Amino acid sequence: MKIQLQEDVLKDQNEAATFNRAIFKQHKTLVINMMSSPGAGKTTLLEETIKALKDEYQIAVIEGDLATERDAERIRSLGIQTVQINTVGGCHLDARMIAKILPEFDLPSIDILFIENIGNLVCPSSYDLGQDYKVVVLSTPEGNDKIPKYPVMFKRTHLTIINKVDLLPYVSFDIDEAEMNLREINPQAQFITLSAKTGEGMEGWIHWIKERLR
Amino acid sequence: MKIQLQEDVLKDQNEAATFNRAIFKQHKTLVINMMSSPGAGKTTLLEETIKALKDEYQIAVIEGDLATERDAERIRSLGIQTVQINTVGGCHLDARMIAKILPEFDLPSIDILFIENIGNLVCPSSYDLGQDYKVVVLSTPEGNDKIPKYPVMFKRTHLTIINKVDLLPYVSFDIDEAEMNLREINPQAQFITLSAKTGEGMEGWIHWIKERLR
Repeated sequence: MKIQLQEDVLKDQNEAATFNRAIFKQHKTLVINMMSSPGAGKTTLLEETIKALKDEYQIAVIEGDLATERDAERIRSLGIQTVQINTVGGCHLDARMIAKILPEFDLPSIDILFIENIGNLVCPSSYDLGQDYKVVVLSTPEGNDKIPKYPVMFKRTHLTIINKVDLLPYVSFDIDEAEMNLREINPQAQFITLSAKTGEGMEGWIHWIKERLR
Repeated sequence: MKIQLQEDVLKDQNEAATFNRAIFKQHKTLVINMMSSPGAGKTTLLEETIKALKDEYQIAVIEGDLATERDAERIRSLGIQTVQINTVGGCHLDARMIAKILPEFDLPSIDILFIENIGNLVCPSSYDLGQDYKVVVLSTPEGNDKIPKYPVMFKRTHLTIINKVDLLPYVSFDIDEAEMNLREINPQAQFITLSAKTGEGMEGWIHWIKERLR
């Protein structure tokens, strides 16, 4: 079944977000908007998440990048339908871009749609895509001071994932301070630590997703 | 001597950049606009750069952040005049913000002015601040695929610094591929590898700065 897209939906960011949200709800698709700095490990985390879930659930991915299809190719090689959005310099995805490509997906058959946003800890936080959950990935080499320094992102996300805990012996990152800083900005936020590379802590994230499936 | 700032300079980004550039040239101040993803190590690199140069040269710093004075406090503790610009959510510095605070500096006595931009590999690349040189810092944990994935930034910068080479044994980063990718996008770009933390390679960067002093 293909989505019918009315042209006027594409005129306004917030209208498009409302449209997307209604469509996702109608088709019982769980939609997760993944955000982070460049290089925090979103794509690697997605690859490992897909490997853990794809036998049980139908998954699709939207990949946002300024340029190249590199990340989309990585996800496609796992046998997952992936649509690439190239923003050609644009610093975030918006709901109109998502609405425009929804007809490419057979949503009623899709359990989970991951949206990998542009690597940017600022702009993506201000754009509702119609997702169910916003997740931000912060990697240990970035330092735990990024939570107070980029408060808008951490205030508006449901879950903060600290990735690359395998690098903790080699970098300055205080997990307890990060969690405390997060609670100050966003008392409802959830907090998971993991390494997508080694698999440490992945079960907590997989459990978090499974609990939210419709 | 204080800078006279005409109000109409603040109306237009590009006019403000031209104004800033003329002022910097008049006072023979070398101005370097430092850009990177969040957590690539700009502030640590600045700290180590200042320690290496401050006995010989008069240095000042403009710190751009969305929120907090954390980075400015780190630089001030080295005895360096530092003016913090908080963009309150804005994703980049622009030339008007710089023009507005220039009167706080005694430019004729300042040899080098470092501007630490907002941590963002997208938006800051599009805004001329009137600087002499744009430098982008890419850290090894981010991965060398960031150069083709964020081409606008790497195309428009004079120098790419690969930071955190001390982490090379623990992360996937191919220095040769990074340099090759950079040359494809920007054949004139210069390329320096270093670790601000261990000091490895710092002499190349210090030499680069000294060669450019007016």
